[in-house]
Amino acid sequence: MSPSDRANPSPPPPARAAVVLLSGGLDSATTLAIARSQGYASHAIAFDYGQRHRHELEAARRVADHLDAASFRVFPLNIGIFGGSALTDPAIEVPKDRDEGSKGADIPVTYVPARNLVFLSIALGLAEVIGAHDLFIGVNEIDYSGYPDCRPEFIASFQQTANLATRAGVEQNGFTIHTPLIGMSKDEIVAEGTRLGVDYGLTHSCYDPVVRGAEAFACGRCDSCHLRRAGFRKAGVPDPTRYAP
Amino acid sequence: MSPSDRANPSPPPPARAAVVLLSGGLDSATTLAIARSQGYASHAIAFDYGQRHRHELEAARRVADHLDAASFRVFPLNIGIFGGSALTDPAIEVPKDRDEGSKGADIPVTYVPARNLVFLSIALGLAEVIGAHDLFIGVNEIDYSGYPDCRPEFIASFQQTANLATRAGVEQNGFTIHTPLIGMSKDEIVAEGTRLGVDYGLTHSCYDPVVRGAEAFACGRCDSCHLRRAGFRKAGVPDPTRYAP
Repeated sequence: MSPSDRANPSPPPPARAAVVLLSGGLDSATTLAIARSQGYASHAIAFDYGQRHRHELEAARRVADHLDAASFRVFPLNIGIFGGSALTDPAIEVPKDRDEGSKGADIPVTYVPARNLVFLSIALGLAEVIGAHDLFIGVNEIDYSGYPDCRPEFIASFQQTANLATRAGVEQNGFTIHTPLIGMSKDEIVAEGTRLGVDYGLTHSCYDPVVRGAEAFACGRCDSCHLRRAGFRKAGVPDPTRYAP
Repeated sequence: MSPSDRANPSPPPPARAAVVLLSGGLDSATTLAIARSQGYASHAIAFDYGQRHRHELEAARRVADHLDAASFRVFPLNIGIFGGSALTDPAIEVPKDRDEGSKGADIPVTYVPARNLVFLSIALGLAEVIGAHDLFIGVNEIDYSGYPDCRPEFIASFQQTANLATRAGVEQNGFTIHTPLIGMSKDEIVAEGTRLGVDYGLTHSCYDPVVRGAEAFACGRCDSCHLRRAGFRKAGVPDPTRYAP
């Protein structure tokens, strides 16, 4: 027992519970670190939605463990049976080395129909059951690749809907959807996560990883790899990503 | 070829596609019949969310076939792993013969966390992929058993969120959530469905059916059975429900 333990014999109050959406990528890992830094007991939920590559879910589990999540769940969700996205439909190619000017001009084929709405809705169900009033999601509108469900107006509308949809929203104080990354650029996210001790070597961002034996390397060429690499460079933080040779 | 075919040699325009949430119950069967009567090609979706009894899903399939759905899907959704509802958690008893006065006063334990929000979100993903702009859901606020996600303010908020969440919402004309039963009492629903040719003997409403061999009978005592029976009585329509002897 240390001297400070003697001075404070009573246990600390229990942490408030939060549900954190975790994908295994850089953004959601940073979001989990931020929730932890704000004192939440973070219940992480990842979605198995028919991704082409399983490395994302393995990364999510590693990150949850690394950042002291109170629990970690993988929710199976076969949204892939609808097709229509390059991330789940092998018939659609992941775009490579896209012209900078074309980003934001249209919504890329890597868009998964209604993804964040579905994920947030299920996370809300979990929150209601475990008595959490706070949800964290790592969307941001700066480097958002043109996804409509990463915009603050979507999040605000979802929060309102969530509070109309649920018993906890109606009877109690309702839900808050936290988007701590919403206004941050990728390099600011990297800098903040580094300050909070995130080991980004555990995370996985690539849309189209190159598998060599049991190892998965980032392709270095998809939109996500380009954004991530530029983020480390601008933040002046060494990039721990293992790119395909 | 009939004389009328000669007079109109060109095929009719293709029906507009809609997604209809189908549970196998009386309300959603009527909703599907209404969508059909409005000329929609109706793609029915049912959810396998860990219901105690599978008869609901079998009823949904029968109803989809009976009412000429353009397609029928069962989406597996293990929301039951969260627990917290009498409909999915065997540890919670389904309430029987509740005092009329207690209805609406509080939200019953048959409430499934965030259910309609989750169901509508997934139905929206399907709609976006198949190019439908219309969703039908059989909620109503009269006989709604106190569920917050059956109220018109929830539906209006969801529609707004849906149009912010999706590519089709942002780029095209957006989505409309149709709730044709919203202001109808149970007997009005029964009367309308009967007018549209619904065979309610195919539907299943009971929260807690009694299984005898391969047959499932309605318990006749849960909230849902009470509402349904009263609906047929008030509508003056013979009740085809098979109650437990």
